[in-house]
Amino acid sequence: MIPRYSRPTMTDIWEPATKFRIWYEIEAHACDAMADIGVIPRENANAVWKAKDVEFDVTRIDEIEAVTKHDVIAFLTHLAEHVGSDEARFVHQGMTSSDVLDTCFNVQLVRAADILIADIEALLAALKRRAMEHKMTIRVGRSHGIHAEPTTMGLTFARFYAEMDRNLVRMKTARTEVSTGAVSGAVGTFANIDPRVEEHVCAQLGLTPEPISTQVIPRDRHAMFFATLGVIASSIENVATEIRHMQRTEVLEGAEFFSAGQKGSSAMPHKKNPVLTENLTGLARLVRMTVIPAMENVALWHERDISHSSVERGIGPDATVTLDFALNRLTGVVDKMLIFPGNMLENMNKFPGLVMSQRVLLALTQAGTSREDAYAMVQRNALKVWEERTDFREELLADEQVVAALGVDAINENFNLDYHTKHVDTIFARVFGAMT
Amino acid sequence: MIPRYSRPTMTDIWEPATKFRIWYEIEAHACDAMADIGVIPRENANAVWKAKDVEFDVTRIDEIEAVTKHDVIAFLTHLAEHVGSDEARFVHQGMTSSDVLDTCFNVQLVRAADILIADIEALLAALKRRAMEHKMTIRVGRSHGIHAEPTTMGLTFARFYAEMDRNLVRMKTARTEVSTGAVSGAVGTFANIDPRVEEHVCAQLGLTPEPISTQVIPRDRHAMFFATLGVIASSIENVATEIRHMQRTEVLEGAEFFSAGQKGSSAMPHKKNPVLTENLTGLARLVRMTVIPAMENVALWHERDISHSSVERGIGPDATVTLDFALNRLTGVVDKMLIFPGNMLENMNKFPGLVMSQRVLLALTQAGTSREDAYAMVQRNALKVWEERTDFREELLADEQVVAALGVDAINENFNLDYHTKHVDTIFARVFGAMT
Amino acid sequence: MIPRYSRPTMTDIWEPATKFRIWYEIEAHACDAMADIGVIPRENANAVWKAKDVEFDVTRIDEIEAVTKHDVIAFLTHLAEHVGSDEARFVHQGMTSSDVLDTCFNVQLVRAADILIADIEALLAALKRRAMEHKMTIRVGRSHGIHAEPTTMGLTFARFYAEMDRNLVRMKTARTEVSTGAVSGAVGTFANIDPRVEEHVCAQLGLTPEPISTQVIPRDRHAMFFATLGVIASSIENVATEIRHMQRTEVLEGAEFFSAGQKGSSAMPHKKNPVLTENLTGLARLVRMTVIPAMENVALWHERDISHSSVERGIGPDATVTLDFALNRLTGVVDKMLIFPGNMLENMNKFPGLVMSQRVLLALTQAGTSREDAYAMVQRNALKVWEERTDFREELLADEQVVAALGVDAINENFNLDYHTKHVDTIFARVFGAMT
Amino acid sequence: MIPRYSRPTMTDIWEPATKFRIWYEIEAHACDAMADIGVIPRENANAVWKAKDVEFDVTRIDEIEAVTKHDVIAFLTHLAEHVGSDEARFVHQGMTSSDVLDTCFNVQLVRAADILIADIEALLAALKRRAMEHKMTIRVGRSHGIHAEPTTMGLTFARFYAEMDRNLVRMKTARTEVSTGAVSGAVGTFANIDPRVEEHVCAQLGLTPEPISTQVIPRDRHAMFFATLGVIASSIENVATEIRHMQRTEVLEGAEFFSAGQKGSSAMPHKKNPVLTENLTGLARLVRMTVIPAMENVALWHERDISHSSVERGIGPDATVTLDFALNRLTGVVDKMLIFPGNMLENMNKFPGLVMSQRVLLALTQAGTSREDAYAMVQRNALKVWEERTDFREELLADEQVVAALGVDAINENFNLDYHTKHVDTIFARVFGAMT
Repeated sequence: MIPRYSRPTMTDIWEPATKFRIWYEIEAHACDAMADIGVIPRENANAVWKAKDVEFDVTRIDEIEAVTKHDVIAFLTHLAEHVGSDEARFVHQGMTSSDVLDTCFNVQLVRAADILIADIEALLAALKRRAMEHKMTIRVGRSHGIHAEPTTMGLTFARFYAEMDRNLVRMKTARTEVSTGAVSGAVGTFANIDPRVEEHVCAQLGLTPEPISTQVIPRDRHAMFFATLGVIASSIENVATEIRHMQRTEVLEGAEFFSAGQKGSSAMPHKKNPVLTENLTGLARLVRMTVIPAMENVALWHERDISHSSVERGIGPDATVTLDFALNRLTGVVDKMLIFPGNMLENMNKFPGLVMSQRVLLALTQAGTSREDAYAMVQRNALKVWEERTDFREELLADEQVVAALGVDAINENFNLDYHTKHVDTIFARVFGAMT
Repeated sequence: MIPRYSRPTMTDIWEPATKFRIWYEIEAHACDAMADIGVIPRENANAVWKAKDVEFDVTRIDEIEAVTKHDVIAFLTHLAEHVGSDEARFVHQGMTSSDVLDTCFNVQLVRAADILIADIEALLAALKRRAMEHKMTIRVGRSHGIHAEPTTMGLTFARFYAEMDRNLVRMKTARTEVSTGAVSGAVGTFANIDPRVEEHVCAQLGLTPEPISTQVIPRDRHAMFFATLGVIASSIENVATEIRHMQRTEVLEGAEFFSAGQKGSSAMPHKKNPVLTENLTGLARLVRMTVIPAMENVALWHERDISHSSVERGIGPDATVTLDFALNRLTGVVDKMLIFPGNMLENMNKFPGLVMSQRVLLALTQAGTSREDAYAMVQRNALKVWEERTDFREELLADEQVVAALGVDAINENFNLDYHTKHVDTIFARVFGAMT
Repeated sequence: MIPRYSRPTMTDIWEPATKFRIWYEIEAHACDAMADIGVIPRENANAVWKAKDVEFDVTRIDEIEAVTKHDVIAFLTHLAEHVGSDEARFVHQGMTSSDVLDTCFNVQLVRAADILIADIEALLAALKRRAMEHKMTIRVGRSHGIHAEPTTMGLTFARFYAEMDRNLVRMKTARTEVSTGAVSGAVGTFANIDPRVEEHVCAQLGLTPEPISTQVIPRDRHAMFFATLGVIASSIENVATEIRHMQRTEVLEGAEFFSAGQKGSSAMPHKKNPVLTENLTGLARLVRMTVIPAMENVALWHERDISHSSVERGIGPDATVTLDFALNRLTGVVDKMLIFPGNMLENMNKFPGLVMSQRVLLALTQAGTSREDAYAMVQRNALKVWEERTDFREELLADEQVVAALGVDAINENFNLDYHTKHVDTIFARVFGAMT
Repeated sequence: MIPRYSRPTMTDIWEPATKFRIWYEIEAHACDAMADIGVIPRENANAVWKAKDVEFDVTRIDEIEAVTKHDVIAFLTHLAEHVGSDEARFVHQGMTSSDVLDTCFNVQLVRAADILIADIEALLAALKRRAMEHKMTIRVGRSHGIHAEPTTMGLTFARFYAEMDRNLVRMKTARTEVSTGAVSGAVGTFANIDPRVEEHVCAQLGLTPEPISTQVIPRDRHAMFFATLGVIASSIENVATEIRHMQRTEVLEGAEFFSAGQKGSSAMPHKKNPVLTENLTGLARLVRMTVIPAMENVALWHERDISHSSVERGIGPDATVTLDFALNRLTGVVDKMLIFPGNMLENMNKFPGLVMSQRVLLALTQAGTSREDAYAMVQRNALKVWEERTDFREELLADEQVVAALGVDAINENFNLDYHTKHVDTIFARVFGAMT
């Protein structure tokens, strides 16, 4: 959790104050349930709610923990200071620390998931807007970094939209994965606590009861959660890489936003660096690195060991805070990025018309020219364009054999860009739905 | 793909012959679709099906590839040798190699997923059977490797069942993730091929059309697929670790199967090694290591670069073959593993009755003894058990103060194991459904 | 960097104040060198040293950065506030921000390495002391968690010593890897700054000049550094795993230290949990997860992109702080851990004498008994021990055929533990040197 | 181990035949040593060497293993078929399977290391040759993909040389890490075998004795070995990324080799794809993914468990074979790659002269112009170049205020490329040594 790559809405979830608040709610709801089923007196359950509006004193709890060496006991001691030691005597009865810790961790992950879901939705909105805006902005498609055939900038945004839309579904699934709670006692047998307490606590916190826990909630759930964050981070890297490529001096088809009068750069107008997307590339690595430890956490010894705990103290905040920041940063970049359609055309025509050479080759063979002849015709003209940067169409129109084979109109037709965009609507309908 | 950790049903999917067969089907179905919409003559489409029952000659294709340096062209050349060069002239028209390669890869992954789903189902059946069998077999639950409270062996199997049941759902989701195909041309614009061809090919192969592809199917899908395999592998490690612990000489609560008269080991009857579950621990690492490269594959340059290809040639077969083998091995282990209920009781009573000390402490305070007094009473008797291995219950019954506080019946009641198993039915109903 | 897993000596290295201090030294030494070679006036170089004892105001620098959006410029602005704007006007001349940032990062890593080296040395001292103490403490060796042959606890400590000694060498090599500095300008050509400046700055900071830098110091160095931390962390996990196994209730051959009268646990004397070594297992994962991103950082675009920066802001502090904490924690655990030699013997004799069955088998064949006969003799006695827990030696002595084949003395000789420890001195001499 | 990414010299190391040959040598040398110290008869040791020139029958050994379920026993049985069952009866005496397996694995890794060392040396030769060739070939240096200042292509090759030279040192260190052998028995105590046997075997195989082994050689050694391969792979990715950037259509400063008349591409002369370096990018991921499992292998249970074995069966061949192939492929690429100096100049002058704007700014301030004035002067001219692509030098020469401030000569001087190359010799001397 690096301060400069953090947003308060997400870091708040991981603050001690938030944690203690959730612990409190778990304990208070558990008391309610125990009172409902007659295990403890109703007055004692009610008494716990006296602390409803208390802001727990983190420093005080830390002081107590320094003595007790146990965080949950320290909290309960502090809670008793508010509720009254006698009134509080049934709090946590029959429960084990992990009932509180694990249920709290999942509440935090669910809240983090909610923010990430909203983040992705905001990113989707930006991507869709830019896709619509540049639906027909012609740009050369590239395989291997090499010009292939024309496509549009809108299709680029649309494919990032489709990818992030899949990530939205995945994130929602990941949220469900960790939306369970457990109040089942030291080895998960409910020996000292009624399963109805767990049901009530979970219902109040928006969770479902873990069908079978040990001392802990099983960690395959969390492995899946962090794996999903890793996939989303990789998608962020995907978008960031595209933008970094677009901004490089030789390409210059797009750029991260900079205000026209921004000082410092105007004396070196060529030196606008894609630092945000480079940063996103690094942040993606930071999120992704949490996936393997989360998977290594799955195999705990018997009913639990505590090896997962230190890992989660690290990756819980780190992965969610970093991904939240990254998604927001990317949304800002997409929203405001500059697109240079003129440069797109200029790049496509670096070797004027040459990007159409394959299409001309096909046209010739479809028109009945033998493969060998067609190949020779295209080759001699293409090489001229490659070596002398003349215009491919003009070369073809000046080549009698080609004109004889295809005719002038057909030659020209091959350079019609509509040919390449004719199915953009179809694709957009697939991605954004019928009417977009 | 290590031969000794491979099963033919899975390795078959990754054989060249299978791959060529799928390529053939893609091409043949594409021709059908093109004929349907009038782009190529129906006879030519029909002619392709002449090769329907041909087993393609992998050696011959390799020979051609050695010349053409292009695998898809080599295949098409060989196909023409069967279909007839003239009849085959419309095969692959308007398509790009990736249309074939990526769609094929997804067909392979879907088939692999089907096997893995069946594997998990078989494992679930074994786990369920053993859970039922040992539903009430008492065993001490352990946190941190240290005795905590009693539980049952059935609950151990039940929680592995629940975990693998979640993996079943995840595997089905992962299958859906990769069940798309693309026949969209060099940069995904359908410039040279009608989207209806893609629809037809996908429908015939049991796929859905990729809503928007570039030259390739987007790799976030595959990242999610391999991440899911990594989670499942981690769950295998979880089960394997439990069994390895059970089998260690000092614990001996269970063991991988060995036949009673098995030669070689009976002269050293203590030396039965849990080699299968140790092996599974290692295989889990091999599957898990494919997750990060799959995520690194997501960020391709522009409409595609080919960096993902070598990675997938490795991890595609490796991860699916290894996971298939591991799931099957684990099913065999679970199915046949020996359970030693007598040793479970003996272990639980290593310090006779001491595992109940916490419960006695609670009973005393609930009966009105002050915390300090209760603590002192339990402590003096517990330490005797710890140091001299006397019986905790007998010590308590001989302690006048304890008897005065609790009464003989209540003391005995604390050693009643039913207390710990009273909710096993509830938990089983949650895991296996109402009637099990 | 998780506060509870952090030690101030290491976190101090990563404080902003430390960073600015190092930046200051780089700039001041650079000015000195530039004055020495006549590029800037000596007075200006001297003037910079006026700030020698200044504690830079981190808040103030942050304020300036909020305006300039550039951390190095913010620092230089603040420095000028101390030195005088005119006197400071040659500071940073011809340098690029990375000259400061990268050289500083390496100074920090070298300092971190020095602490880690001292950590390992302290751990080695503890391991050696315990090895000497338990050099001849008999304990059963286990393969696959199953009893094999006797060994000693001293050998266990000795092998951890040897492993950590290798890690000491590795850590020193890793320190050398990152002990370079660069003051070479925007693309590493020294266009605007003389190489002698780099030489002087490096010499003053205890670094060597990077032979060839671009804008940055090449990141393969850092990849190797973090990979080394990952190996050391894995060794920590190795030791921690051994101790966790030793402490489990059924084994109880050792335990993390707890004071005899420690309250809270004495009412449950069996419930002493190996929480420190479990924690170390998790911390090892946290260190190890930084290895892959450090390797992904190696491939920067052209003369640099900034993708590595966010990664290093995370893993630089995280990996070094966590590893430092873990090494210290492990040293404390090793230093004070309880060893229970009585339990070691008891465990070894769980099936009395059975651990010698293989040796008896060999003795019989070496004494001329056929393999088949020897096998049958051992088997019938071993199975009795396995099933009825009688004493293997007594069974053998009561078996006329065995006595006839070996003789009473030779039978007894097989149970002599000296046989297994006869080379302990040799091994100790290998590990600790001639006199130990 | 993917056939198309494998070279026979490396795959041979991992063939069963090679493995059995090494096993044989270990056993035969062990017999020699045992005869030397009088433990077994000399004739029996000599008899083993009768099999010296035998090519062991892998199929036969597999058949035996199918019965014995033990690979080492199967081999020993087959060996006895050659040597004579009676003569062979002392083979393997006092040894444990791991003595053979682990020592063999290290022999294989050392041989693999030797090949990799030779690979790196070949790569270094190619890099050095190209560095010398293009020592002064001017090219724009880029940070963030954006033009910064001039550098030379030779410096690019030289920094890759320096990086690979570090990798050479690392690879040699890694070789030493794994060049140990162990013949120390079931738990490493030499109970049944004299340490002199280990010494002799190791000496004969070019290994040093592992100072302290358990049943196995400690796995931190192998973790370090594979981590080193991961770093080297990352360096390969670094070089590959540079070349991929150079070859993209808009940059075209270099390209993987293609023969002038190569068919297939000349009709699309722009479509030369950097498929080899893209492939290398993927191969780097495959090597890197083996690092974490190798580290997870370090923590074995007690004196060994076998979880590492399946991992090593995979990553041992995979990582070494893939890295060997990748290094060779890269050497070929570097050796033959096309360099286009003309395009380098053209790119640098995309905005003619603008890359010098920062230097002009510095020159102005050094000539006494105030920062504000200097900035304004540069800005107005730079923006013209940026917007209209006029020539920056000409603009400056036409700007009276600039001419007044700097003079014509000084203006021109700023565009002198020698300024940027004046220290290339210095850097080359650092990298390649005094005379280069």
